[in-house]
Amino acid sequence: MKMQRVDYSVYLVTDRDLSRGRTTLEIVQAAARGGATCVQLREKKCSTREFIEQAISVKDFLHAQGIALIINDRVDVAQAVNADGVHLGQTDMPLATAQAILRDSMIIGISAESLADAVQAEKGGADYIGVSPIFDTPTKTDTAPPLGLEGLREIRRAVRIPLVGIGGLNQKNAADVIRNGADGVAVVSAIVAADDPEAAARELRQIVLRAKSS
Amino acid sequence: MKMQRVDYSVYLVTDRDLSRGRTTLEIVQAAARGGATCVQLREKKCSTREFIEQAISVKDFLHAQGIALIINDRVDVAQAVNADGVHLGQTDMPLATAQAILRDSMIIGISAESLADAVQAEKGGADYIGVSPIFDTPTKTDTAPPLGLEGLREIRRAVRIPLVGIGGLNQKNAADVIRNGADGVAVVSAIVAADDPEAAARELRQIVLRAKSS
Repeated sequence: MKMQRVDYSVYLVTDRDLSRGRTTLEIVQAAARGGATCVQLREKKCSTREFIEQAISVKDFLHAQGIALIINDRVDVAQAVNADGVHLGQTDMPLATAQAILRDSMIIGISAESLADAVQAEKGGADYIGVSPIFDTPTKTDTAPPLGLEGLREIRRAVRIPLVGIGGLNQKNAADVIRNGADGVAVVSAIVAADDPEAAARELRQIVLRAKSS
Repeated sequence: MKMQRVDYSVYLVTDRDLSRGRTTLEIVQAAARGGATCVQLREKKCSTREFIEQAISVKDFLHAQGIALIINDRVDVAQAVNADGVHLGQTDMPLATAQAILRDSMIIGISAESLADAVQAEKGGADYIGVSPIFDTPTKTDTAPPLGLEGLREIRRAVRIPLVGIGGLNQKNAADVIRNGADGVAVVSAIVAADDPEAAARELRQIVLRAKSS
């Protein structure tokens, strides 16, 4: 069953290489305690079997908390663990192909690197858009030029589905991202590389809630 | 619709790194002209979208020839292009998980690195087994110790589903592999790295046919 209302406010994207020796499960648990509302599991280097095992361990935990689990890129892994959704970048499976396979069984998020990408994703029936990158980010090196807050506002004016900003986001700029039209902030290093991932998630949650209510 | 009778006799496994500058499509076309009967597309390094595009280009060609297209590891890519099958190694998606996703829509082949793997794969409902590796191979570095012809015979005595030998196979040892119980020989470099992939496939086909009829 497709989750009907996902809270994208504080959207954690995992990265084991940046986790400073802590396991992905440890990071996810800490982030959830702090108030992360959505978790995207991103594993670019491990085997399919390891990715599935990782996803199962995380899912059991998140499910109990009512937090959405979204799988990066791999539609098959998302199906294998019955995740809440899949997130597809511009070099991942095309949206229409994923829809044909998944038949509305889960959320599909699309990374938009331009206004045109965002409009196309909404038109195609994406459930949400990852607006990427908002700022320069050291986490990913294959990204398009930053859209900035202006680019985010432009996309906000053009589409109605939820927008999650990503790319260089942290406790310092999260409020700006929300005020400029994002429904949530997606972060990698601001949580996974933090000294205290739980505290980092808690601070982000408070910043986002405050920005939304102001 | 699941292909009912697949001819595993000359089973090409692609590897773009070994193709000496020729595209995977060129290698596949040459191998098909020479008499390859089955093609497994293996892409470990490219993006999902590129893998799908690659698979579509190869599939259109193979479909017209009645040659089975099998996708390595990626159940989602196999679904995306409606391939004839998927091949799963011991670190790929577990067989039962793939069956739950694919619901008998395509062939599932399993790599067995031991007698126990093979027995389990047949019991689990695999359509064929890749017995791997028969001999030492420079193509893959993460393989188990070679099973040898003795190991192949032992597996042949234990299971009834089709067996495809893989690992260090070429025109010199293909006949032995067939005589020791394999239904087909899977090769990588013996075709993709050959000076003339079409001639290499033709020679393998003749060797396999001769070994089967003797």
